[in-house]
Amino acid sequence: MSERFVVIGGIAAGMSAASRIKKVKPDSEVIVFEKGEYISYGACSMPYYISNPEGDYRDLIVLSVDDAREKRKIDVRTNHFVLGISPTEKRVFYRELISGKEKSINYDRLVIATGAFPVKPPVGGVDEDYVFSLRTLDDGIKIKEFINEKKPRSAVIIGAGYIGLEMAESFKELGLDVTIVEMLEKPMPDYNEKIISTILQTLKENGVKAFFNARVERIEDNIVYSTAGNFRADIVLLATGIKPSVKLAKDAGIELGENGAIAVDSKMETSVSGIYAAGDCAESIHRLTNRKVYVPLGTVANKHGRIAGLNAARETIRFPGVIKSAEFKLFDREVARCGLTLREAMEEGFDPVEVSITASSSAHGYRHRYPIQIAMIGDRRTGKLLGAQMIGKVGVAHRINIVATAIFNGNTVKEFSMFDLAYAPPFSPVWDPVLIAANVLSGKLK
Amino acid sequence: MSERFVVIGGIAAGMSAASRIKKVKPDSEVIVFEKGEYISYGACSMPYYISNPEGDYRDLIVLSVDDAREKRKIDVRTNHFVLGISPTEKRVFYRELISGKEKSINYDRLVIATGAFPVKPPVGGVDEDYVFSLRTLDDGIKIKEFINEKKPRSAVIIGAGYIGLEMAESFKELGLDVTIVEMLEKPMPDYNEKIISTILQTLKENGVKAFFNARVERIEDNIVYSTAGNFRADIVLLATGIKPSVKLAKDAGIELGENGAIAVDSKMETSVSGIYAAGDCAESIHRLTNRKVYVPLGTVANKHGRIAGLNAARETIRFPGVIKSAEFKLFDREVARCGLTLREAMEEGFDPVEVSITASSSAHGYRHRYPIQIAMIGDRRTGKLLGAQMIGKVGVAHRINIVATAIFNGNTVKEFSMFDLAYAPPFSPVWDPVLIAANVLSGKLK
Repeated sequence: MSERFVVIGGIAAGMSAASRIKKVKPDSEVIVFEKGEYISYGACSMPYYISNPEGDYRDLIVLSVDDAREKRKIDVRTNHFVLGISPTEKRVFYRELISGKEKSINYDRLVIATGAFPVKPPVGGVDEDYVFSLRTLDDGIKIKEFINEKKPRSAVIIGAGYIGLEMAESFKELGLDVTIVEMLEKPMPDYNEKIISTILQTLKENGVKAFFNARVERIEDNIVYSTAGNFRADIVLLATGIKPSVKLAKDAGIELGENGAIAVDSKMETSVSGIYAAGDCAESIHRLTNRKVYVPLGTVANKHGRIAGLNAARETIRFPGVIKSAEFKLFDREVARCGLTLREAMEEGFDPVEVSITASSSAHGYRHRYPIQIAMIGDRRTGKLLGAQMIGKVGVAHRINIVATAIFNGNTVKEFSMFDLAYAPPFSPVWDPVLIAANVLSGKLK
Repeated sequence: MSERFVVIGGIAAGMSAASRIKKVKPDSEVIVFEKGEYISYGACSMPYYISNPEGDYRDLIVLSVDDAREKRKIDVRTNHFVLGISPTEKRVFYRELISGKEKSINYDRLVIATGAFPVKPPVGGVDEDYVFSLRTLDDGIKIKEFINEKKPRSAVIIGAGYIGLEMAESFKELGLDVTIVEMLEKPMPDYNEKIISTILQTLKENGVKAFFNARVERIEDNIVYSTAGNFRADIVLLATGIKPSVKLAKDAGIELGENGAIAVDSKMETSVSGIYAAGDCAESIHRLTNRKVYVPLGTVANKHGRIAGLNAARETIRFPGVIKSAEFKLFDREVARCGLTLREAMEEGFDPVEVSITASSSAHGYRHRYPIQIAMIGDRRTGKLLGAQMIGKVGVAHRINIVATAIFNGNTVKEFSMFDLAYAPPFSPVWDPVLIAANVLSGKLK
C-alpha cells in the first residue's frame, strides 16, 4: 500500500514540501489542506500587485490548484480548515469550510506549514472595514478592491518594517497621501545608523510622512489617533508584525522553541517523529550562532518546505541554516542585509568591529554613478566576516548576496577581500564596493 | 638607511604596489618609472570615455601624478623608459624620454609591472593613421581626438573579444556604422552556445554587422579587405588581443611561464629573489586547477599589485588565485562568467556537467521582468561547482559574483543550492536564478 503524506498549509512551504514528496515518491498519496481559496502564491509580491493598475492576482500564483492536482498529482483541498492533530492516532481532523462538515483522515507522515498570522495593535478600531492587514492573497485582493472602489486619498500605515515600507511605496505609486506611524524610534532599527538615515531621507524625498516613537491610541471615523498626532486615513494598513501559527502543533503536544515557533531539528522534524514543520510556523537555525531563530521570510519558507518534504519522503537532507539575508525596494533605493547586525553580534558574544563606507556603483570615467553605502561587520577574535548592510540606487540587491555567500562559508574578512570577482566599468569600480569594505574592515581588525 | 623600492610601470598594478609599499614602509624610498605621461588610470573605462560627449580623460585617472607625489610621497617619474634590469647589480637602466638622457639607479627590491601590448594582425595597413589599438590612455585620447576632428561615419573593428564588443557599443553610441570582423567562428567562443546566441542577437538588434570565420587581408585607402568582404572604414580598431610585456624580465634572466607571462609564486615573487612581478605582465594561479594561467584583467592586476607591494615590503601575503571572473556590458545586456567553461573543465580532467536555464529577473507578479540565461557547470566526480556564465538585461553583473564567491570557496553545487540569499520581488524570484540553476544542476550530478 502506498504511503499517505498530509501537508497542512498550501502556500510556499506547504506546496514546496508536497511537490518534493510527490517527486521523490510518485506513488504516494499527498494531501494538502489549505484553509483559504488560493495555494502557492508569492505573497511578497502583493505590494506590487496592489500598485500596478494592470495587476491581476492570478499573476502571483506560482502553481494553480488545477495544475497541482492534474500535473503534479497532489490532492489539494482548498477551503479545508484543520481542527486538530492526533500524533498517537496519526490522524488529522478538519472541517470542509464550504459544506461545514467535519471529518478526519489518517496520515503516515505529516508536514505542518501553517504559516503565521498578523499581530494587530491592541487598540479600538482595528476591525473597521477600511483597516487591513496584508498577509494572505485574500488580504491583497481585498485591499486592491477597496482602493478601486473607494478611491482612498489618504493612507496611514502602522509599522515601519518591511511590509510597512514597501506598502508606503505602493500607496504612493497609486497617488495616495501616505503617513507612517511607528512605535519604535526609527525604521529598521537593526540597520547601521547611516543606512537608516538614507531610509529616512528616501521616505522624505518621496513625500512619505513618517512618525516614530509614536503609539497608536485608536482608529475611529477614518482618523488614526496617536501620540504623534491624529491622521486622516481613508485606508489604514496594520503592518505591526506577525506571529507563527502554532496552535495546532501546540495542542498536539509538539514542542515549541523559545522564539515561539515550532521547534525543529536540521531535518525539519519536530519533537514528534514523523511530523515535520516548515515555513513561517517553524524556527530556523542561525548558521553563525547555532542559535534557533525565527525568520519568517519567503526564501526560508521555500527551503524549509523542500527539506521537510524530502526528509518526510525518507531522503536525508539537512537545512544548512539561515543568516537572515533580507532585502527590500524603497522607491528608487535598494536596501539589503545579511548576517549579524552590530547589536546582534555583540549580544551573541562576538567582538565585533563595524565599518561604514560609501563607494561608487561604477568605475571612474563611467557616466552614471551612484553612491552605495555599505556597513560591514567582522569579528576581532576570529577575523570572520559577520554581517553587512547596504543601501543604494543600484547594485545592492544582488551584491548583498556576494557577502552572504562569503558569510555562509565562514570566510574571514581578509580572505574575502582578495576574492576574484568580475568587474566592468558600468557595474562596479575595479575593486568592488564589497571588497573595498572588506579591505577597510580588514585594516581595523588587526 | 632607508630601503629603495623601484617599480617599473605606473598603471594599475604598479601604482597599487607602490602605494602599498609606502603605506607599510612610510620611510622607504619608492620610485615608479612610467614610460607614458599618465599613471593610475582606469583603462577599462576607455570605451565609455570615448562614447561620452562630455568625456574627459582626467575622469579616468584614479590618482594624479601630483597626488601620488605630494600626498603619497611616491617618487613618480613619468616619461621614463626602462631599458634594462641587472639583478646581480640590483640596478635599473632607464632613459628620460624628454631629455633623451640615459641613467641608472640601484634598488633594494624591484616590482615589475610592465603590463601588456596589443597584438596587431600581420597584414598591411595596420599603421595607417586611421587605424588604432586601444590599450593605453594615450590610445584612448587619440581615438577620441580622431573622432572629434575627423567625424568618421564608419568603423571596422577587428576582433570580437571584450574590447571589440565594448567598442562596438561605443562607436554605435556615437552614431557610427559598425562592422566587426572576427577570425574565429563566433564571439566569446568559450561561452555557452545559448549565451553566444544572445550575444549575436544583441549585436543584430543594435545594428552591428558582424562577420565570423573572417580573415583580414589588408587595410588600404579606408577599406578593410577580408575573406568576408571589403568594408569601408573611416576608422579601424584592432582588438585582436594582447601579449604580456616581458622583454625586460626575460633579458634580465627572469623565468617566464608556459603562458608567456612572467612566472611568479603565490607571493608574486619571480625566479629572482627580491624581484616581484604584477599585473598584465605576470601570470596567475587558477584556484580550481592549480595551473598557471594568464589573466590580464584590471581586477587581477590591482590584486597582484597590492600583494607584490606588500611582499616586497616584507609583509607576507599570498595571492589566493583567480577563477577568471569577467564581465562586460553589451548595449542593453550584461554578460558575465566565472570559473571554468565546459571546454576548460573537460581539458582539465574534470567530469563536467553543464545545465542551461532561463529564469526571470523578478518574482511572479512584479511588472518588470526580464529573462536571465544561466549556464552552470559542476563536476560529477566531486559534486563541485566549477563555473557559470550569464546574460540578461538586468541582474547579471553582480549575480555572477555570488557564484564566483561559492566557487572560490570550493562549494559543491548541492551546498550552494541551499544558501540563504536575500530576495525581494523586484530583484529576483524567491529562488534566485543562481539557486535555480544550482538545483537543476544538482539533479543532473546525481
